[in-house]
Amino acid sequence: MRTPEEFARHDIRVFVHHEVLAVDPDAQTVRVRDTRSGRTFTQPWGALVLTTGGQPSRPPIPGLNLAGIFTLRVPEDALAIKRWLVEQRPRHGVIVGGGYIGVEMAEALVARGVHTTVVEMLPQLLPTFDADMAAHVEKTLANHGVEVRLEHRVEGFEGDNRVRAVVAAGRTFPADMVIFSVGVRPAVTLARQAGLTLGPTGAVAVDERQRTSHPAIWAAGDVTEVHHLVTGQPAYIPLGTTANKQGRVAGTNAAGGEATFRGVVGTAAVQVFDVEVARTGLSEREAHAHGLQAASVTITASANAHYMPEHAPLHIKLVFERGSRRLLGAQIVGRTGAAKRVDIVAAALHAGWTTAELAALDLSYHPAVAPVWDPVLVAANVANR
Amino acid sequence: MRTPEEFARHDIRVFVHHEVLAVDPDAQTVRVRDTRSGRTFTQPWGALVLTTGGQPSRPPIPGLNLAGIFTLRVPEDALAIKRWLVEQRPRHGVIVGGGYIGVEMAEALVARGVHTTVVEMLPQLLPTFDADMAAHVEKTLANHGVEVRLEHRVEGFEGDNRVRAVVAAGRTFPADMVIFSVGVRPAVTLARQAGLTLGPTGAVAVDERQRTSHPAIWAAGDVTEVHHLVTGQPAYIPLGTTANKQGRVAGTNAAGGEATFRGVVGTAAVQVFDVEVARTGLSEREAHAHGLQAASVTITASANAHYMPEHAPLHIKLVFERGSRRLLGAQIVGRTGAAKRVDIVAAALHAGWTTAELAALDLSYHPAVAPVWDPVLVAANVANR
Repeated sequence: MRTPEEFARHDIRVFVHHEVLAVDPDAQTVRVRDTRSGRTFTQPWGALVLTTGGQPSRPPIPGLNLAGIFTLRVPEDALAIKRWLVEQRPRHGVIVGGGYIGVEMAEALVARGVHTTVVEMLPQLLPTFDADMAAHVEKTLANHGVEVRLEHRVEGFEGDNRVRAVVAAGRTFPADMVIFSVGVRPAVTLARQAGLTLGPTGAVAVDERQRTSHPAIWAAGDVTEVHHLVTGQPAYIPLGTTANKQGRVAGTNAAGGEATFRGVVGTAAVQVFDVEVARTGLSEREAHAHGLQAASVTITASANAHYMPEHAPLHIKLVFERGSRRLLGAQIVGRTGAAKRVDIVAAALHAGWTTAELAALDLSYHPAVAPVWDPVLVAANVANR
Repeated sequence: MRTPEEFARHDIRVFVHHEVLAVDPDAQTVRVRDTRSGRTFTQPWGALVLTTGGQPSRPPIPGLNLAGIFTLRVPEDALAIKRWLVEQRPRHGVIVGGGYIGVEMAEALVARGVHTTVVEMLPQLLPTFDADMAAHVEKTLANHGVEVRLEHRVEGFEGDNRVRAVVAAGRTFPADMVIFSVGVRPAVTLARQAGLTLGPTGAVAVDERQRTSHPAIWAAGDVTEVHHLVTGQPAYIPLGTTANKQGRVAGTNAAGGEATFRGVVGTAAVQVFDVEVARTGLSEREAHAHGLQAASVTITASANAHYMPEHAPLHIKLVFERGSRRLLGAQIVGRTGAAKRVDIVAAALHAGWTTAELAALDLSYHPAVAPVWDPVLVAANVANR
């Protein structure tokens, strides 16, 4: 986004090609290695902000290091994938893991003419959604020629130097390339070495000011856990939206200012071919896992007026607490208008509203953008019955 | 939406082609006239729900009754306009009044090949928006060949049996047809005759249960005024979204149930050619008119990631109270994504949030639907400075 030279104009020195080898929290120094010259040196600090991010999970599966198997995290990963597509012209691609990255990469490979199979360990894709909502995405992928294999745990990769096949649930899937996308873990090596407290999720624990267990060390982004406003508990939900907000808060506080980050409600969106998929709060399964007495309603309604030339159904699932009717979450799938409608429910979760309070919202209507009763209100009204 | 026969299946008798001539609130009867047979009769009631709606304003302007001058309220009006377009093939259309109906009819006439002029008394179109935001719509209309004449008060219509010209601000505009859309008034004739209390807006005053000043008469829709949650005062904002919610509440209470309607925040949307326009809360002008110490910020940001093949700017104006930074309203204009983003701010207004609370929202991100910082959050961050 910005070059070291641009930062320099603001009196900020940026060291690229430098790796921090160790943090000394007592001496308040870092040991740094210039990766081009090999030179190491010690840099003192008064305030430290740890933003080491996340990294793709790489469980010990035989053959995972074969050529043609890619993880996707940084732009360089994308360029390597693109190079393989151009130079090797793969016919069969296998995607291991059907989360956000997996389903997006399925679309990308299909667009390149690669016969694509998604292999997922769980009985559904997109594990942050309930199975009934994820089914819409499974159908969309199938409609675009993607083979989806659920409940297939990957056992190994075959090939000599380069991958030739994926073995999952005892079956062999031919593969000229593999996208390995089974999740993200916080990159906590330095944090651990520095003795910072990790939370129950395994990520760095921070307070509302993004301060770690060390009074002069702040942390932000995918290396940290986040306060979930619906459960009231820490969660590990590594997303750029959250990282950006946390970074502002950590930076402000580290520089002597005052800022707080109250937490997230678990909002996320993904586009799969022509389908927009979004969620916020807890899925019904997640709500049960947190010991909540959750119920749900699912409706299908037109995203805009039924008499408009372009109208398409929107599938909405609202999750709420039995008795209190407190909203717990929403999942929306449709051709358009899913993501920003989930944001309406996200606001309702921030406010701690019931389904009745959601149903009372004064939302915009115009035949081109919504029916008189916006589908979000329809779902809330059904939940109120 | 439903036929009398469909209602009959639910034991509901519907009298079409019947006009209520008078309400006797003491005897609890209505005097009814069958408009086809001319027969009149008296119908007793235990609970009455008054939903007489609104009607187009028709100030006493010379020539307003000439053929070819239309108001637009009910489907029959639209059919009459369509018939005139087909049978008379007008070359010049003049739209008097540049509110929601006026700008939508401008698009409709242009689509029929009619040279269209919008004549507006005020110095801007869309009076529920601030002038700087309405300017985007004025430009859009001009780009599509619509002549917009602001600060032109209509003085009369010329023609023999049918309209030939509109005279405004001393100038004559040729017109083979006119859409007269200068506003809506509550249809309070029956309410007045029944002695119901009208509020400061001139519409029927109702409480949270949609009950009028008579304990057995409820009212809903465009005949009523509505509680504005931002000002805390009654307002007349006749919209279908509100009417639908009020109708449910009035019906539930009239039938012996319990329901309340807390009010609106003034959300509305309109589409003008390829531009989506939406607003909620108070405009800056409205805020000042209510004696509030209002400030505003206006930003332009891409509705989705800047590197997506289809991205277009979104103009957002946030209005807030100086000092407290309490949100007062928002106006959004863009090619897409304006209306449902205004709904996020509408939720924030229902919650009574500050700009900082808006900026903290966990909103969805995906390159196809939003940047990492949704434009709503960008605007809130700028307001927080």
